Amino acid sequence: MLRTHTCGELSLEDVNQSVVLCGWVQRVRDKGGMIWLDLRDRYGITQLLFEEGKTPAQVLETARSLGREFVVSAKGEVIERLSKNDKISTGAIEIRVSELNVLNPAKLPPFLIEDETDGGDDIRMKYRYLDLRRNIVRKNLQLRHQVARYTRAYLDDLDFIEVETPVLIKSTPEGARDFVVPSRMNPGQFYALPQSPQTFKQLLMVAGFDRYYQIVKCFRDEDLRADRQPEFTQIDCEMSFVTQEDVLSTFEGMIRNLFSKVKNIELPEVPRMTYADAMRQYGSDKPDIRFEMKFTELKGGDQDLTSGKGFGVFDDAELVIGICATDCASYTRKQIDELTDWLKRPQIGAKGLVYVRYNTDGSIKSSVDKFYSDEDIKKWVVALNAKPGDLILILSGQADKARKQLNELRLEMGTRLGLRNPEEYRALWVLDFPLLEFGETENRWFAMHHPFTSPKIEDIELLDHSLGMVRANAYDMVINGVEVGGGSVRIFERGLQQKMFEILGFSQEEAQEQFGFLMNAFEFGAPPHAGIAFGFDRLCSIFGGADSIRDFIAFPKNNSGRDVMIDSPSVISDAQLKELAINVV
Amino acid sequence: MLRTHTCGELSLEDVNQSVVLCGWVQRVRDKGGMIWLDLRDRYGITQLLFEEGKTPAQVLETARSLGREFVVSAKGEVIERLSKNDKISTGAIEIRVSELNVLNPAKLPPFLIEDETDGGDDIRMKYRYLDLRRNIVRKNLQLRHQVARYTRAYLDDLDFIEVETPVLIKSTPEGARDFVVPSRMNPGQFYALPQSPQTFKQLLMVAGFDRYYQIVKCFRDEDLRADRQPEFTQIDCEMSFVTQEDVLSTFEGMIRNLFSKVKNIELPEVPRMTYADAMRQYGSDKPDIRFEMKFTELKGGDQDLTSGKGFGVFDDAELVIGICATDCASYTRKQIDELTDWLKRPQIGAKGLVYVRYNTDGSIKSSVDKFYSDEDIKKWVVALNAKPGDLILILSGQADKARKQLNELRLEMGTRLGLRNPEEYRALWVLDFPLLEFGETENRWFAMHHPFTSPKIEDIELLDHSLGMVRANAYDMVINGVEVGGGSVRIFERGLQQKMFEILGFSQEEAQEQFGFLMNAFEFGAPPHAGIAFGFDRLCSIFGGADSIRDFIAFPKNNSGRDVMIDSPSVISDAQLKELAINVV
Repeated sequence: MLRTHTCGELSLEDVNQSVVLCGWVQRVRDKGGMIWLDLRDRYGITQLLFEEGKTPAQVLETARSLGREFVVSAKGEVIERLSKNDKISTGAIEIRVSELNVLNPAKLPPFLIEDETDGGDDIRMKYRYLDLRRNIVRKNLQLRHQVARYTRAYLDDLDFIEVETPVLIKSTPEGARDFVVPSRMNPGQFYALPQSPQTFKQLLMVAGFDRYYQIVKCFRDEDLRADRQPEFTQIDCEMSFVTQEDVLSTFEGMIRNLFSKVKNIELPEVPRMTYADAMRQYGSDKPDIRFEMKFTELKGGDQDLTSGKGFGVFDDAELVIGICATDCASYTRKQIDELTDWLKRPQIGAKGLVYVRYNTDGSIKSSVDKFYSDEDIKKWVVALNAKPGDLILILSGQADKARKQLNELRLEMGTRLGLRNPEEYRALWVLDFPLLEFGETENRWFAMHHPFTSPKIEDIELLDHSLGMVRANAYDMVINGVEVGGGSVRIFERGLQQKMFEILGFSQEEAQEQFGFLMNAFEFGAPPHAGIAFGFDRLCSIFGGADSIRDFIAFPKNNSGRDVMIDSPSVISDAQLKELAINVV
Repeated sequence: MLRTHTCGELSLEDVNQSVVLCGWVQRVRDKGGMIWLDLRDRYGITQLLFEEGKTPAQVLETARSLGREFVVSAKGEVIERLSKNDKISTGAIEIRVSELNVLNPAKLPPFLIEDETDGGDDIRMKYRYLDLRRNIVRKNLQLRHQVARYTRAYLDDLDFIEVETPVLIKSTPEGARDFVVPSRMNPGQFYALPQSPQTFKQLLMVAGFDRYYQIVKCFRDEDLRADRQPEFTQIDCEMSFVTQEDVLSTFEGMIRNLFSKVKNIELPEVPRMTYADAMRQYGSDKPDIRFEMKFTELKGGDQDLTSGKGFGVFDDAELVIGICATDCASYTRKQIDELTDWLKRPQIGAKGLVYVRYNTDGSIKSSVDKFYSDEDIKKWVVALNAKPGDLILILSGQADKARKQLNELRLEMGTRLGLRNPEEYRALWVLDFPLLEFGETENRWFAMHHPFTSPKIEDIELLDHSLGMVRANAYDMVINGVEVGGGSVRIFERGLQQKMFEILGFSQEEAQEQFGFLMNAFEFGAPPHAGIAFGFDRLCSIFGGADSIRDFIAFPKNNSGRDVMIDSPSVISDAQLKELAINVV
């Protein structure tokens, strides 16, 4: 080793020891007679001392020549520091340097290597290897390593086997768009990169592996939003001879174990909510339950507290729903107008916002005073369980749209009211998802989870006439309003699987060509099985209290799928194209 | 859970308990009044008992209807077995079944699900999910999981961080052929799949990660030999502020730890050999040192015990080398002819074989009696340290070829003499590889390891005039004649890296375009660093005492790079091609 210690481990106990440290120059303070240098490595910072008269002249000269981020090795004696720094673990000592070697000089970095940096996103991505030197970025990746370690430890303890499934697989038309890989040895044919190891893990169950997991890269060629990556990592799991309940308890255990080990937080038992309730009460299949503010239907179902008073907007609406924002009656007209404008942006698309101020003096002021009496509105107040000082916000229209819009408004109000503390964690199981959803554009049914998800046994007969009513044995885990995992009980019988493909519009030949290997496997003794997959990058970002998964990926790609550091993708040679028997159009 | 216990855990302690087991029907023995059924899962086999008169008639009927590999659930009482089977852990008990349910019937499998199967390679690959049910195949993958676990535990303890590097990277002309992935969002451009995370792990060192590892999939589009896979797994590692010695001791420690934990074998300290010695003494850079049989040069270097006696073959030869096969003087003429024919096959390409029998009575018989006196040949016997009863085998010709051929002969003799026991393990470090090798066809120099390997400091001046003489700080670990890992101290200075690319025939522009990101990174404070990568599939096959890596991969591809189970690669749709802006030629 070029060093005897790291920059994070020396303390008063080591005083008088001769040591060699290696690292990067974080900062040099030259006070004329004395020079202090902060030497940094992954483990910490240690202060080096150079003193006119005591330090060899040559060493002093070298110290004066150093710039930020030079890589040096320093030999010296550990001494007690006069003015101690209790913010760092090595703050009680410093090194009186007797030898100093520059291992590699450094050009001035294009941005500050500090927690608070002056570098913008683009420059930091281009020089990602410098960005990764910043403590906060490196700590995210250390956290990621810890989450992976504890995940493996938990699953290993439960007899799960990690099995690597192939990366070069087969393109299938169902699901998102595949990345493909031309095969040189099979001209005109292509591999696909897996969107998930779904069929392989099911085959491992057919093979009797009983409990499988894998922390595995997956790939989707989708148009990237801020928080999607073309390659991402999953904790992928499958179990045999289990019910949905077993999967829920096993993986609730995993998540609680991770919170305990990684965050030192004892997460309470994870509550459960049906998809139907989640949509009705929160307008979302991934509600943030750190705060209440549930939806109240003023018109909808059997209830109608709004029609027949001459307010056409509500009269024509399929649904009128509201939320109650505690202590917000003091919102000014300007604030409410601003909220209304926010709702009318095309991303949300609401037509307008109705409000009711329930003032602290008990009086009521609403934006629909001219249609509704105080008496009428009192009924709304009761329905919403509003207290004096509260503000009621109401949206209306086509039911699905109104719920989606109110979900956005609820989350926005939660944020504005400080009810979404990233250091507070509330997990939730959402259950009983619909099996199918109808694609209006394509005019056909799609699997909501994927085609291998089992309908609930009691709903199987609905497959013959009421596809939209069929519920699946499918479940999502949601933390703080973010879907972190999802899974289902799987179909394990050839007949039912074939029927699913029919419903999804596959001809028998297409189903056999694409998924014949799986349906055949079901005929050779497939056990009942179920599974789940967690978005690993996302889970890490939640543990890190951050919004973006990109900060938890060592070398992420930008929104155009480019790695700007290595400048990829790039053109390849004609010789390569020829070997692969493809042309660029 | 559909079961209360697995098929591998019940014992006499559980007698009288009511249990539910699930699993596969391994075997049914119907003796009329009694039926015994072996129920199998991953954890073991438990015997089920059905008895005419005692077992409900309906259950008996179901039991009689079962075929091999049916999936069933059985409820019953644990009872002590009359005739115990001490070969299995549950052999003292059986289950008196009261309820039996078929969870899924099974068609007759196309081959026997037993350790000794009647299925050939092709059928077992097509039905890999059935092959994986066989104990010996599943155990290989369980072993793989254990090797991964202990690898991670060892490295985690030493403060290594596992970091995931990207799979969608950039194609580079150096090294093997890349698999490429057309980018839809960047038409005409391609990602490449990594042949190794080499440049990324070096960037992590520049980023100050200090100690990195990753168990990671890598990809090479090469023509496949029996024991190559287009996708394979590496244990990839890198360290900063270290010398070659630190890497050797850290990873020798890892391998010894794995042998201890996985195989319960205490491997002795790993000996070291230079590349030059390995080639001279074994004709191979990966000698199998489970047995001696080192090469002796009869003509070569300063020695010449063969020239000037009228035997033109030896007179014209650059090198005459032999090995001594202990106790093989009794080899018949037929056996020696057969060895000669084996050597003359085109795979080896020897012109002929000279032998000397040193009989137990002290007499000598050789195939070149007519050119050499007993006196002459006695000198050979002394040089080879042969004892009465030994057989000397001699090859000659151009030095490199003769060594390669004798290496093959030595290994073959080792095998024939039973000196290569797969359960005996001998590891070896091979050091001081040449930095460069000359490609005759391409008429240029190639990096023997890769372009990032550092020359030995004392050999750097040779870069200006004697490229073939430059030794690298590169090392391989060899176990039982198989290269399981290799690495090097890296170049960490831009100037030297640039010089390497020049030597390899890159123009300055090409070097900058392909590897500019790395050379730029070296200018911002790159620490000295070194690393190693182990072939994980290969390592597992060695621990498993097997020759083929394919047995240690869950879903391997065949020699044409095809997955015959899922039938991949395959054609993709015109719509997909169009979106990707490519044509099939």
